[in-house]
Amino acid sequence: MGIKIHGSPFSGATLRVVAAATEKELDFEFVHVDMSVGAHKQPPFVSLNPFGQVPAFEDGDLQIFESRAITSYIAYAYKSNGSALVREDIKEKAIQAVWMEVEAHQFDPPAIKLMWELVFKGMFGMETDTAIVEENKAKLAKVLDIYEARLSESNYFGGETFTLADLHHLPQLHILMDTDVKTIFNERPNVSAWCTDILARPASIKAIALLKEFM
Amino acid sequence: MGIKIHGSPFSGATLRVVAAATEKELDFEFVHVDMSVGAHKQPPFVSLNPFGQVPAFEDGDLQIFESRAITSYIAYAYKSNGSALVREDIKEKAIQAVWMEVEAHQFDPPAIKLMWELVFKGMFGMETDTAIVEENKAKLAKVLDIYEARLSESNYFGGETFTLADLHHLPQLHILMDTDVKTIFNERPNVSAWCTDILARPASIKAIALLKEFM
Repeated sequence: MGIKIHGSPFSGATLRVVAAATEKELDFEFVHVDMSVGAHKQPPFVSLNPFGQVPAFEDGDLQIFESRAITSYIAYAYKSNGSALVREDIKEKAIQAVWMEVEAHQFDPPAIKLMWELVFKGMFGMETDTAIVEENKAKLAKVLDIYEARLSESNYFGGETFTLADLHHLPQLHILMDTDVKTIFNERPNVSAWCTDILARPASIKAIALLKEFM
Repeated sequence: MGIKIHGSPFSGATLRVVAAATEKELDFEFVHVDMSVGAHKQPPFVSLNPFGQVPAFEDGDLQIFESRAITSYIAYAYKSNGSALVREDIKEKAIQAVWMEVEAHQFDPPAIKLMWELVFKGMFGMETDTAIVEENKAKLAKVLDIYEARLSESNYFGGETFTLADLHHLPQLHILMDTDVKTIFNERPNVSAWCTDILARPASIKAIALLKEFM
């Protein structure tokens, strides 16, 4: 049985899960779901996720989907492995949860639009819409102002140690720091130092390299 | 000090938090943030949530925001009060987390658009865009097909007892079941029974009534 991560190297959500499993030094099998032929919208994949989106995850008889639910499971089920990834104290856990929600609801929407316009559209031979880029750069810059303030109080979003609240940003940072958008990160010193730290983690590098093998 | 919920009766996210606190039979003060005069975008509220969105929450010296982070804090910090709201077993907790993510990422986006078009636009004297309504009804119907299958396996999303995975839907159900969109819920027997159950919970009724006093 063991652990299986079903996903695609072109999916940021897949990288989120692979990075969490790598932080926890888990032994897992990566099952490549070939999105170019629509494998994520067909059986057998849709029996793992009826919404037809990667990634999906198996651990013995447990089958789950949604990247942020999977990383939480990994963090709690393998508590004693590798990096801690979650705070134990109930109030610190609450602060961590706030910034996990912020990533999902404030940071991710403009970041995803910028990734689509600046990177993925090019792969499909489509033209970048500069108005959408400017609009979402402005939205992301406002989020990063709040990030700068938060990261002046502590090194990481959940406090003084790296947690899922930081890790969940890896897929967007990995892509956007290779585009012109990196300027709005680098203009903010605390955000810039945090970005560098996240991308330089051995588990981040290893997870990105693993997925590149399947491109 | 005590517990304070800062929010607005016109905010679904506020209802989510008030309902969780009510399920847990907590003694709390409701602080009305008057969105009609932009109180959520100004001090002192922005010191509680720099994103300027309701609700925010205080419990002694803890100050947090993001409705789904607040409900999780309430569920864990007041574990022995009222309804359980969270599963204890690590695999059951993972299943619950999947459906909490599904509510946030699959159900909420079309539901919010329908609430805006069918209810809130009217309050501002704006016209409903029927094309947007049809597009989002179709999207929501697809989500509800998957909900129907899930709710044929267990009475609630997280298993046989009510959890946050169900409660988080209350704000959207409360509004949409008073519109024509209720048809797509009622056409699906398991979804329909689940909706009726959620809306009939004493804590749901009490939370909705509390917020009505501030309208």
